[in-house]
Amino acid sequence: MSSAYGENIKLTIFGQSHSECIGMVLDGAIPAGFRIDENAIKRFMERRAPGRNAYSTQRKEADVPEFISGIKDGVTCGAPVTAVIRNTNERPADYEKLRNVPRPGHADYTAYVKYEGKADMSGGGRFSGRLTAPLCVAGAICIQLLEARGIKIISRILSVGSVKDEGELCEATSGKPFPTVSDEAGAKMIEEIMAAGAAGDSVGGIVECAVLGLPAGIGEPLFGGMESRISSIVFGIPAVKGIEFGAGFGAAELRGSENNDPFYYDNGTVRTRTNNAGGILGGITNGMPLTFRVAFKPTPSISMVQQSVDLAEHKNTELRIEGRHDPCVVPRAVPCVEAAAAIAVYDALAGC
Amino acid sequence: MSSAYGENIKLTIFGQSHSECIGMVLDGAIPAGFRIDENAIKRFMERRAPGRNAYSTQRKEADVPEFISGIKDGVTCGAPVTAVIRNTNERPADYEKLRNVPRPGHADYTAYVKYEGKADMSGGGRFSGRLTAPLCVAGAICIQLLEARGIKIISRILSVGSVKDEGELCEATSGKPFPTVSDEAGAKMIEEIMAAGAAGDSVGGIVECAVLGLPAGIGEPLFGGMESRISSIVFGIPAVKGIEFGAGFGAAELRGSENNDPFYYDNGTVRTRTNNAGGILGGITNGMPLTFRVAFKPTPSISMVQQSVDLAEHKNTELRIEGRHDPCVVPRAVPCVEAAAAIAVYDALAGC
Amino acid sequence: MSSAYGENIKLTIFGQSHSECIGMVLDGAIPAGFRIDENAIKRFMERRAPGRNAYSTQRKEADVPEFISGIKDGVTCGAPVTAVIRNTNERPADYEKLRNVPRPGHADYTAYVKYEGKADMSGGGRFSGRLTAPLCVAGAICIQLLEARGIKIISRILSVGSVKDEGELCEATSGKPFPTVSDEAGAKMIEEIMAAGAAGDSVGGIVECAVLGLPAGIGEPLFGGMESRISSIVFGIPAVKGIEFGAGFGAAELRGSENNDPFYYDNGTVRTRTNNAGGILGGITNGMPLTFRVAFKPTPSISMVQQSVDLAEHKNTELRIEGRHDPCVVPRAVPCVEAAAAIAVYDALAGC
Amino acid sequence: MSSAYGENIKLTIFGQSHSECIGMVLDGAIPAGFRIDENAIKRFMERRAPGRNAYSTQRKEADVPEFISGIKDGVTCGAPVTAVIRNTNERPADYEKLRNVPRPGHADYTAYVKYEGKADMSGGGRFSGRLTAPLCVAGAICIQLLEARGIKIISRILSVGSVKDEGELCEATSGKPFPTVSDEAGAKMIEEIMAAGAAGDSVGGIVECAVLGLPAGIGEPLFGGMESRISSIVFGIPAVKGIEFGAGFGAAELRGSENNDPFYYDNGTVRTRTNNAGGILGGITNGMPLTFRVAFKPTPSISMVQQSVDLAEHKNTELRIEGRHDPCVVPRAVPCVEAAAAIAVYDALAGC
Repeated sequence: MSSAYGENIKLTIFGQSHSECIGMVLDGAIPAGFRIDENAIKRFMERRAPGRNAYSTQRKEADVPEFISGIKDGVTCGAPVTAVIRNTNERPADYEKLRNVPRPGHADYTAYVKYEGKADMSGGGRFSGRLTAPLCVAGAICIQLLEARGIKIISRILSVGSVKDEGELCEATSGKPFPTVSDEAGAKMIEEIMAAGAAGDSVGGIVECAVLGLPAGIGEPLFGGMESRISSIVFGIPAVKGIEFGAGFGAAELRGSENNDPFYYDNGTVRTRTNNAGGILGGITNGMPLTFRVAFKPTPSISMVQQSVDLAEHKNTELRIEGRHDPCVVPRAVPCVEAAAAIAVYDALAGC
Repeated sequence: MSSAYGENIKLTIFGQSHSECIGMVLDGAIPAGFRIDENAIKRFMERRAPGRNAYSTQRKEADVPEFISGIKDGVTCGAPVTAVIRNTNERPADYEKLRNVPRPGHADYTAYVKYEGKADMSGGGRFSGRLTAPLCVAGAICIQLLEARGIKIISRILSVGSVKDEGELCEATSGKPFPTVSDEAGAKMIEEIMAAGAAGDSVGGIVECAVLGLPAGIGEPLFGGMESRISSIVFGIPAVKGIEFGAGFGAAELRGSENNDPFYYDNGTVRTRTNNAGGILGGITNGMPLTFRVAFKPTPSISMVQQSVDLAEHKNTELRIEGRHDPCVVPRAVPCVEAAAAIAVYDALAGC
Repeated sequence: MSSAYGENIKLTIFGQSHSECIGMVLDGAIPAGFRIDENAIKRFMERRAPGRNAYSTQRKEADVPEFISGIKDGVTCGAPVTAVIRNTNERPADYEKLRNVPRPGHADYTAYVKYEGKADMSGGGRFSGRLTAPLCVAGAICIQLLEARGIKIISRILSVGSVKDEGELCEATSGKPFPTVSDEAGAKMIEEIMAAGAAGDSVGGIVECAVLGLPAGIGEPLFGGMESRISSIVFGIPAVKGIEFGAGFGAAELRGSENNDPFYYDNGTVRTRTNNAGGILGGITNGMPLTFRVAFKPTPSISMVQQSVDLAEHKNTELRIEGRHDPCVVPRAVPCVEAAAAIAVYDALAGC
Repeated sequence: MSSAYGENIKLTIFGQSHSECIGMVLDGAIPAGFRIDENAIKRFMERRAPGRNAYSTQRKEADVPEFISGIKDGVTCGAPVTAVIRNTNERPADYEKLRNVPRPGHADYTAYVKYEGKADMSGGGRFSGRLTAPLCVAGAICIQLLEARGIKIISRILSVGSVKDEGELCEATSGKPFPTVSDEAGAKMIEEIMAAGAAGDSVGGIVECAVLGLPAGIGEPLFGGMESRISSIVFGIPAVKGIEFGAGFGAAELRGSENNDPFYYDNGTVRTRTNNAGGILGGITNGMPLTFRVAFKPTPSISMVQQSVDLAEHKNTELRIEGRHDPCVVPRAVPCVEAAAAIAVYDALAGC
C-alpha cells in the first residue's frame, strides 16, 4: 500500500497538499504509558517547516500537529496515535495552469496517467513534499521512543551541488541550524542555494545520517535487512534518487582487504576498527553506528522556462512555473531523513 | 518478514546454504494457464551458477530447480509455484573453524548475536549468496510474465574496482557472457578480478540495470513508489551497499535546469528528451526506461590473513579463511539484480 | 495489526470512545473519480446512531463524518479517504468508578492486564461500540462502490433473545426501521428489549446478512476464502461471539445428500437449487447469494448488581453500573454487519 | 494472500492434492535453538491420516513430513522451517470425469470460474482436505512451542449428525482415539458415520476445542482480536461453515445477567465463575480457557447420484462420484482444528 509502512508498527500517512488536513496514524508496537514530549515534536517540526530563512520558500505554515487519538494527558494509551495538521495557506490558483502542462521532473504527468486526470494535484497533491510533515510527526515520536532506549539519530548536509562538507559527522554537527561539520562549507552551500534561486534555478544535494547506540542483532536476513527497511521508507521522501550504506558506492571500488572492517575487543565489546559496513552486516546491525547517505535531486519547480507538453491539446509547449518553491530541498529534508530512519529502526527494534 | 517479499505477489524464500534444499514459493497474482519455459529458466540460472569460468569459484552446483507444486504439464495452475534446489556439494568442514571467529565483512558476528549462536551458519547459512538461486528462479518466472507483456530487463557490469565500462546500456550488451558495452573494458575488468583473486583478495563493482517497455502509471506515491519497491528487494541480495535511480547521486550535483527531463510528443507518445529520472517521477513510471545502478562491495571472504575476535575466548585473534570463494560477486550478481527487478516490477504491475 | 483490515484495500480505524476524534483511513483499491453520495452515508450512519427510539440509549451523537482527505468536490481523487467524527457528548465521570472494578463481560479487565492499567478506558476506550461508527463510514463507501457494480447488501434481525423472525430475508425487509420479515415478530422483539431494559438487564440476538449480485469466482482457497475474510472483520464488531455461513451449524446435522446444493442451468447461468453453501464453495463465491448469520451476546453493561473484583484492593466486590446503555445492541448492529460485509467483499473483489 | 497466514509468524502452505509435493514454510517468530520432537509431529499427523479405521477412507498416505530447511540436528536454527510431504498414492483417473461436471458442494465449479478451467483440480487440487496435512505440520510445531510455555490445546467431537456428546471437554477426552467424553455417544457417532457411508451418503458434525493455560492479555482490540485471528485460519479448513466462541450462538438467547461471567479472586488470581466469554473479552484473553466450536458440513463427495451440470455442453446432467471418500471428515478434522488454534494462538502470543 502506498500510504502504509512497517511490520511491527504500522504508519499510515494521509492527505493531499491542499486537502483539509494531512496527517498520520501510528499503530502497533507503541507502548501504552509513554509520555510524549510535544514540545520536542514541535521543535522537530520546525526544522522541516518552510519560511524560516532567506534560502527557503516564504510560505508560512504552522505545521503543528493536533493529536486526535492515542494520547491522553500527554501519555500514550495503547490505541493508535493519530495526528492531523490543518492546511491553512492554500493558494490553489497557483496550480490551475499546471493542470494540462506537466512540470518536468514532477509527478504531474505520471499522476495524470495513473489516475486518468482525476487526482487532486493542487499543490502537488499526494506527491507534495508537504506529505513529509506527517512523516516527521511519526518520526519525532519514534525518535523519543528510541532515545528512551539510548539510541540517537544525527545527520548533516554532506553536499549541496558541487560544494562538499568536510570532516566526520558527529552529534555537535547535528544540532546546528545549517548542519555541516565545516561552517565554511555550510556558508558556501547557502551561497550555492541562493545563487541557484536567484537564477530561477534549483540545486540538489546529499544528506548523511547516522543512528548511534543501536544494539547488535537488529534486522533480519534477506528482505528484512536494515538496508531494505530503511531504503523503502527513505525513497518515500520526494526527490530522493539514491541511497548508500557505509562505504556505499565507494565500496565498489575497493578491495576486500580494504573494505572489510576488522573486528576487535574494546573493553569486552566487539567493535570494528573501520565502519565501511555502515553498522550493518548481512542486514543485521553490528553495534557500530548505522550510517547512510541520501541523494536528493534539485527541486523540479524552477522559474526558468521549460519544455513540456500540453496533454489536452496533444502538442509540445513551453512552461513557466510561478509560485513559491525552495531552490533546494536539502536543508528541510534533513529532519525528514532522520524521521524515516527513526521509524524504520524503531520498527525493526520492536520486532526483536 | 525476512523471507517474504511482495504486495500483489508473495515471494517466500527458504533454506540455508547447506540445508537439504533451498527454494521458493511464489504466490498471488500469478495467472493460471501461463506456460513456463523451463529451459529459459535453466539458461537464466546458469548465468548465476558458479564454476563456469576462470574468474569464478570452482564449486559445481547444478542449481536446477525442481518444481514441486503450481505447475502442471509445464503450465501454471493458479496454485502457488514452489521450487526446490537440492544442495549436493556441501563441504561443512570448511566452515567449522569459523564457528567462533567471525569473518570480517560477513554476517557471522551479527548472526551470532541475533540467534545467540544457534543459527546454522554452515556455508554462510541463511546469509549465503546461495540464497540468490531461489531469487533467480522467481525472477526468471517474472521475467517470462513480463516478456509476455512486452517488458524486457537488461543489464551490464558498469564497473569492477576502478575499471569502468563506457557507452550506453543496450539489449545487445545484456546478452554477452561478460556484459559490458566495451569489450576492452570487460577484458580489463576480468584482469582486475583475476589479479585480486591471485592476491588472495577480492574486488567490488557496480551493476546497471534497465527495464524496457514499461507502461507509464506503474507504482504509487509515498512508500509504494518504484524506488521503494525495487530497493527493498535489491538490498536483499548479499553484498549490496547502494542503489541509485536515473542520475542518482549525480543528480545531487546538478541544477534543476540540467536534471529536469523536458517532455515532448514523439509520434503521439509523451516522452522525455533526457532520462535523469530513470523512468520514475513521484514513484510512478513515466514510460521511459526504468534505470538503476547497484553497488556491490568486494567479497568479504578473502584468503589474506585478517584481524578478528574469538567469541568463545573473548580475545582478539587472526583469521585465515580457506575454501572456495569468488574474488568478485559482480558477474554472478547480474542475473540476481535482473531477477530482483523483475519481481518488483511484476508485483507493482500486478496491482494496476 | 489491531486497527487495520484488508488486502487490496487497507482500512485503518483510529480513536477511543472519548478521544477528541474517532475516524478511519481507507486506502488502496479505491478508484479515483468515484462520486461519493454523502447523503447516503449520513442515512447509513443514522441507522447505527444511538438515541433514535425508545429501545435505544438516549445519548445523542451526531456521528456525521467529516472527510479531511481523499475526496475533493465530492469525488475520490485516488489518495486515501480519511474521515473523522468528533466526540462531543463525553461524560467521563460515568466511567471513573469503573477504573479498578472491571465490568463482567467487558474488556475492562483484559485491557487492564494488556496495557498495564495505562489504557484510556473512558467510555470503553478502544473497545467501545463507538468504534463501529468509522467502520460504518468505510462500509458506506464500499457499499456505494459495490452498488456501482450491481452488488447489494441486505440484512435483518433474525432473533432477539428467544424471539425468532420468520420467512426469508429479502430486499423489502432490509429497508424497514426494525428489519424483520414478520412485523409481528419484530414487535415481540422490541417488547423483549424493552422488558430486559426495564429489568435493568439486557438481551442478545442474531443478525442475518446477504450479499446479492456477487459474481462467481471471488475469494481464494485456504486462508483467502470469503468465510475467512468476512469472519475476521465481523469479529471486530464488539459483542460478536459466533458466525455461520449458509446452513452453518445446521449443516453439521445434515447428510451430504441433504446439504449438497444441486447445480442446474437457469437460462444459461449455473445456479444451485438450494443455498446451504451460503454462496461459497471452497472459499470462492458461486454466484448465489452470500449469506451469513452473526450472534451477538447481550450488552454486558446492565444496571443490576454484579459480582466483580477490586483490582486495586485485590478483593471481591459488588458493582452497579450507571450511565446510559442499550439493553440490546442488535438493532444498531445491523448496519455494522452490513458495513463489515461490504468492506470484506469489496476488498476481495478488488483483487480479482 | 490465499496461502499465507500470520502476523508475527508467517505460514505459507503450498501444493495441490496431486502435485509432486505439498508442504509449508513457517517463518517469523520461531526462535532459534528450539528442539523439535519429530516423533510427536508424526503422532500428531497420524491423527489426521486417512485409512486408519473402518469409518475412514482406505487411501494409505504416509504423510510424513520431510524437513528440508530450518531444522538442523533436530533443532531450529532461526531460518524458516520448511517441510514437504510427497504425494505417492495418486489416482488421477478417478478425477478425469469430473472435469466438466462439478460436484455439488465442492469447489469444482467455483475453481472452474475463477481459474477459467486452468486449475489443477486432480484430487480436488488446491481445495483438497489434503492441504490440511501441511497445516497440521505447522500446527504440531506451534503446539510444541506453546507447550514449552505451559499452554495446551485439547478438543473433542461434540456431535456427528444428530448424535451429541455429553459432559465437559477435558484433557482426558482429548487423548482418546475417538475423542468424546461419553464413550457411548462416541460409539453412536461411529454408527452414524458407518450408516451414512453404507448409504453412499455422508454426515457432518461439530468439533469443540479449548486452549488451556493461556495468560491474560493476548490479542488486540478490533480486527486483531482472538476471535478474528482464530476464525480466519479455521475457515481455511475445508468444509467449515461456522464458528462460535464461548456460549456463541447460545449467548444470543441469554440475558446479560445470565451471560456475563462474574469475576472473583481465586487465590490471588482473577477468574470468572462461568466462561460464557470463552476466555475472550474485547478480543483479548482473560486467563480462562479459550473455547470454541467449529461446524463441519457433511463431506460433499457422496456416491449417490446427484444433479449437476455439464459445463462443456451447457446442460443439466447427473453425476455419480466414484473413488474413496470419508463419509465424515470430523474425526480427521479434530487435529486440524487444534493445529489451526495453535498457529493462531502462537502467532498472537509472539506479538506480546
